[in-house]
Amino acid sequence: MKRFTISASSTYDVITGYDTIKDIGKYTGEVLDPCRLCIITDSTVNNLYSQVVLTSLIESGFQTSKIVFPSGEHSKNLSTYTNILEALADEGITRSDAVVALGGGAVGDIAGFAAATYMRGIRYIQIPTTYEAAVDAAYGGETGLNLMSGKNLVGAFWQPSLVLCDYKFFETLSDLKIKDGAAEAVKFAVISESSLADHILKNDYEYVVERCISIKKSLIEADEKCYGLRQILGFGHTVGQAVEKLSSYSLPHGHAVAIGMVVESRAAFKAGLTKTDISVELTDIFKRLGFDTSCHYSADEIYNLAVMDKKIFGDKISVIVPEKFGKCSLHKISISNLREYIREGLK
Amino acid sequence: MKRFTISASSTYDVITGYDTIKDIGKYTGEVLDPCRLCIITDSTVNNLYSQVVLTSLIESGFQTSKIVFPSGEHSKNLSTYTNILEALADEGITRSDAVVALGGGAVGDIAGFAAATYMRGIRYIQIPTTYEAAVDAAYGGETGLNLMSGKNLVGAFWQPSLVLCDYKFFETLSDLKIKDGAAEAVKFAVISESSLADHILKNDYEYVVERCISIKKSLIEADEKCYGLRQILGFGHTVGQAVEKLSSYSLPHGHAVAIGMVVESRAAFKAGLTKTDISVELTDIFKRLGFDTSCHYSADEIYNLAVMDKKIFGDKISVIVPEKFGKCSLHKISISNLREYIREGLK
Repeated sequence: MKRFTISASSTYDVITGYDTIKDIGKYTGEVLDPCRLCIITDSTVNNLYSQVVLTSLIESGFQTSKIVFPSGEHSKNLSTYTNILEALADEGITRSDAVVALGGGAVGDIAGFAAATYMRGIRYIQIPTTYEAAVDAAYGGETGLNLMSGKNLVGAFWQPSLVLCDYKFFETLSDLKIKDGAAEAVKFAVISESSLADHILKNDYEYVVERCISIKKSLIEADEKCYGLRQILGFGHTVGQAVEKLSSYSLPHGHAVAIGMVVESRAAFKAGLTKTDISVELTDIFKRLGFDTSCHYSADEIYNLAVMDKKIFGDKISVIVPEKFGKCSLHKISISNLREYIREGLK
Repeated sequence: MKRFTISASSTYDVITGYDTIKDIGKYTGEVLDPCRLCIITDSTVNNLYSQVVLTSLIESGFQTSKIVFPSGEHSKNLSTYTNILEALADEGITRSDAVVALGGGAVGDIAGFAAATYMRGIRYIQIPTTYEAAVDAAYGGETGLNLMSGKNLVGAFWQPSLVLCDYKFFETLSDLKIKDGAAEAVKFAVISESSLADHILKNDYEYVVERCISIKKSLIEADEKCYGLRQILGFGHTVGQAVEKLSSYSLPHGHAVAIGMVVESRAAFKAGLTKTDISVELTDIFKRLGFDTSCHYSADEIYNLAVMDKKIFGDKISVIVPEKFGKCSLHKISISNLREYIREGLK
């Protein structure tokens, strides 16, 4: 078992280890006094892990309840959010109670946003059950929902009180889900630590998750609200989230971001912002991970959604420029040039 | 023109004066660089004041757009919120842009919450157009929406960048709306400054608004997130908001809170928490303001909604105890005693 402490607007621990979940009650007891805990989870994770979490929490003296919504990115909308809020009220959750987000990225995002806004904010605990959520989404307090207009356009920065990552969960993940996490981890190899790539390819989960936590911890602590440096975590996401939306979320997030990283790397090179075109190396890594990173959408289609990117401030967007594997920088370009930038990236 | 500076998690000015609205562009320019400003307002206020605001903002170099929703507390729901978020996205509002909340309490609450959560939070300016919003709701960053389960159950603490209060707006308010503000102002007389009551009865708006701002400023600065002292601003609201909801929001907020203050004062006296029953004096003041403060709902009906109060932490609720006019304290009682507490207050 390892602990990482993140010091942002609030300070909390990320606990990692194998079969840590059976002690969730004990760890929760370290940060919360006895109270009501409402587990929010999706239909898939509910069948697998709700019981072990409930048992441990009850043994540690917590009162528990549970809200389950249908699995999938399609549920990450204002309708599910509304149902969750009404259910929290029906369960009699008060401002001294808390939410337990049990699931992958979509569960963490929606349960986190419900916690951020129910009664103007209550505490929550993140228990990521996917590789992807464990490497990135579960900590840092970025919560959110999708709008019709685009992905993650509504949300809040709301830090959890605890994050518990159990590697045992990965044993029940499909190959597709493992690949999804690997793709998100490649982002960390590109932005910060090139040597991670080999570990990702070897499925060295524990090492990968722990390095990703360390890298993201520094970025969160430097720029919690994502006005500057933290934006490099958006590498691949300007194009990737557009592609994900264009596929009506049928393309998994990791796959979409893999495509996005390849396109954005090539675009940066073509625009003369980098000396090396790392899209070649990236394409090779993604091929070895089993991804086809060719993009079937047009520059116009992608641009029309990319203009909703949260790295846009006024008429400029910050693009992430991979100078080489392991080193990225931010570069501002005019929105009026973004369509052409994407078009070049697609060639 | 007067300025009050509120120092919470962010620092901002509340500007008060007569016909200050024509200079909204200038004041906004003091706190925001040129950007896109989206005015969010309701159908009533839109007809009266949108044009003067737009003109001033455009003259000061801002780009503007506008979102209008139907007037009334009934609009303060997740459906209106969803429409506003999608419209902000359609207008191309980015993280460096801002919202202008132009209207009464409901507009400020919903536009503030949209600003708090669109793209995980953008800046906003509050322009209260009612007496009630000017004495209380427009500053302090309490934003929110109603759920089916109760009033203001979803929201965020999100401080505005500027509040501009123009007394000229009060000239177009109906008597009913003026009374509504007066009732909310009586709350400040009870919790902090008994001499305010005379000024309220004389419709001495400017004095009343400015004293209310000063009193609330201290409470916000001491307890921004309302975990302690700031809760005394909830005087009359445990019962009042329940009554408001029971009337399907046909009873105006001020009237409902007036009933709530009378009931809660009597309840505190009956429970032996105060030596004096100020409900007698309160009833008289409200009568002079034109309010019938008799309550037509049962203790059970009120209790069933009061259990959603945001002053409840676990199994205890903080009730506000008016020791005398001008001095209140907080007192925790068990939820299991709340029904009886309310029942006594109704007698």
